[in-house]
Amino acid sequence: MRRLTVSLSGRSYDIHIGPGLLPRLAEFLAPLSPTSIHVVCTQVVAPLYAQTVVQACGAVAPTHLCTIPDGEGIKNLATVATITDALVSARADRRSVLVALGGGVLGDLAGFAAAIYMRGIRFVQVPTTLLAQVDSSVGGKTGVNHPSGKNLLGAFHQPSVVVSDTSALQTLPVREVRAGLAEILKHGLLADRAYFDATVAALPRLLALDADALADSVAGSCQIKAAVVGRDERENGERAILNLGHTFGHAIEALTGYTQWLHGEAVACGLCLAADLSARLGYLGPEDLALIGSAISRAGLPVRIPGLSATAAFAAMRTDKKAYAGRIDFVVLEKIGVAVRRQVDDALVEATLADGGFV
Amino acid sequence: MRRLTVSLSGRSYDIHIGPGLLPRLAEFLAPLSPTSIHVVCTQVVAPLYAQTVVQACGAVAPTHLCTIPDGEGIKNLATVATITDALVSARADRRSVLVALGGGVLGDLAGFAAAIYMRGIRFVQVPTTLLAQVDSSVGGKTGVNHPSGKNLLGAFHQPSVVVSDTSALQTLPVREVRAGLAEILKHGLLADRAYFDATVAALPRLLALDADALADSVAGSCQIKAAVVGRDERENGERAILNLGHTFGHAIEALTGYTQWLHGEAVACGLCLAADLSARLGYLGPEDLALIGSAISRAGLPVRIPGLSATAAFAAMRTDKKAYAGRIDFVVLEKIGVAVRRQVDDALVEATLADGGFV
Repeated sequence: MRRLTVSLSGRSYDIHIGPGLLPRLAEFLAPLSPTSIHVVCTQVVAPLYAQTVVQACGAVAPTHLCTIPDGEGIKNLATVATITDALVSARADRRSVLVALGGGVLGDLAGFAAAIYMRGIRFVQVPTTLLAQVDSSVGGKTGVNHPSGKNLLGAFHQPSVVVSDTSALQTLPVREVRAGLAEILKHGLLADRAYFDATVAALPRLLALDADALADSVAGSCQIKAAVVGRDERENGERAILNLGHTFGHAIEALTGYTQWLHGEAVACGLCLAADLSARLGYLGPEDLALIGSAISRAGLPVRIPGLSATAAFAAMRTDKKAYAGRIDFVVLEKIGVAVRRQVDDALVEATLADGGFV
Repeated sequence: MRRLTVSLSGRSYDIHIGPGLLPRLAEFLAPLSPTSIHVVCTQVVAPLYAQTVVQACGAVAPTHLCTIPDGEGIKNLATVATITDALVSARADRRSVLVALGGGVLGDLAGFAAAIYMRGIRFVQVPTTLLAQVDSSVGGKTGVNHPSGKNLLGAFHQPSVVVSDTSALQTLPVREVRAGLAEILKHGLLADRAYFDATVAALPRLLALDADALADSVAGSCQIKAAVVGRDERENGERAILNLGHTFGHAIEALTGYTQWLHGEAVACGLCLAADLSARLGYLGPEDLALIGSAISRAGLPVRIPGLSATAAFAAMRTDKKAYAGRIDFVVLEKIGVAVRRQVDDALVEATLADGGFV
């Protein structure tokens, strides 16, 4: 088992990574001395892990299970109300702990419910997808979508502890594994060239669900993300680099109704577009561009999603949270391993979209 | 004009109190350099002040108005969604500022919308009722009710500045003035005997809406509350004393459907019950008890609300946010001006309710 720490003044927390951690959850929950535990998961995850987790938690405090539907379509205020209603019914109090058991959507949703229930109760992230383990479970961003934009409503609410059981990844559909690889490649691109190269070299083992390779990637990505979050928890500056590929990616998701493409798939294509934009700004050379595209392809992820409306993509990017007064802050690569934020001329973005297959 | 500061590490803010401040709002908003301003108010307040406020704000940035219905019944997630929808439609971004123009319910609701929009945008409290000016606009508690309990969903989100125009109190119905007096008397009881005595002496002038007396009370109450909040922003300890009378008061509101009694009226009766409980614990003598009851009466507020179910009141107190694992933390008075938290035997609470007219 590996342990990392996210250092935040007054609210530091540990990330535990390794195989077989779900049955050992009591170890990580007992120090929180909860009055009660409330496990939230989706109908897809429940039959796989709910019994193990509820039993493990039950050794620490009275434990309740709240099961909700599955899919990005549930990421709205109505589902948050479903979760908080369950907390009320089970008499959760200020010293209760919520356990978010599942993928990134579930973690964002359940974390947001914990953030607003009684103005904030503690919660534990127990991510069961690669994407959630390497990215969304760390950093305290919680929230829901709005028809006009992704994660438009939410809160910064840090978990008390993150427990990433890498054994859970063995049951993951390959498409979900690939989606997680997009965020892993993103972390390498924006902060650590060596980690990017190592990830590219490890792609075959990662796609084969090799346990050591997975644990290395989860720990490596969490380390990169934890360092960035530790320096800028509330995204007043540097943290925005974690959005590399996401301005394009969110636009793709918005244009396709959040259902056609997984978040990681949209981000993968967004990384290629961000790399292309970086090249147009004179940063990346053709070799780097080819390297990035080849890595995305070898991970089984889309480098292009053709046929979407460039005009609609532009409009979606303008309502993105990262836009101010209609101007869009893009994260671009100065080189592989170094990301910066830039205001970019509309013409460059239009050219990038056109060459990326937008019409 | 008087100026007070709420001292919080990194998020200190000023409270401006005085007559004629609404037309001068630009002075207080300009330092925030907002990209846009979004004024939220109710249908009752809109015809009185919306035009003045929108015009004043318009000098600083493009200003939008969002009008919502009136009453405690609107304090729910659906209304929060109405406000955030309006923010999306008006293209509010991370540097926009929301202005909460109205009473306590509006401030709690609009503040919560600001807390969760894009994970938190800045907001300004512009309270127009005595209760909001002396209490709810200060301290950063925002939220909405749940059928099972008051303010069960919410966030700590401090305003960037509070502007209390005491001229607005001249249009207030007398019942609303009295409701505000309950919180003013509460502040004296829990922290400052001299302020309590001065308030009691000033009751006739306050009820006659004497401008100086009102400004003194608003400033005095804000000073007491700001000091407590500055020492314990997130209610990990001392701040809970501000809930004096509120455990009983919230139960009264819950039992009467949040419509029959104003919050301040329920708190007034709750203060009498808390005083009675304090006497049963051997703290307050009969003279102090009589003094508190007489002050509440002279303010035109209820000392008893008979005929409610003691059993239902007990149950409501157990789902109150201040309950842990079913045990209720009461705020009681060691003496007038000194409040403490105590776990109290059920029998004492039952006797207090019985003598208070509960059945």
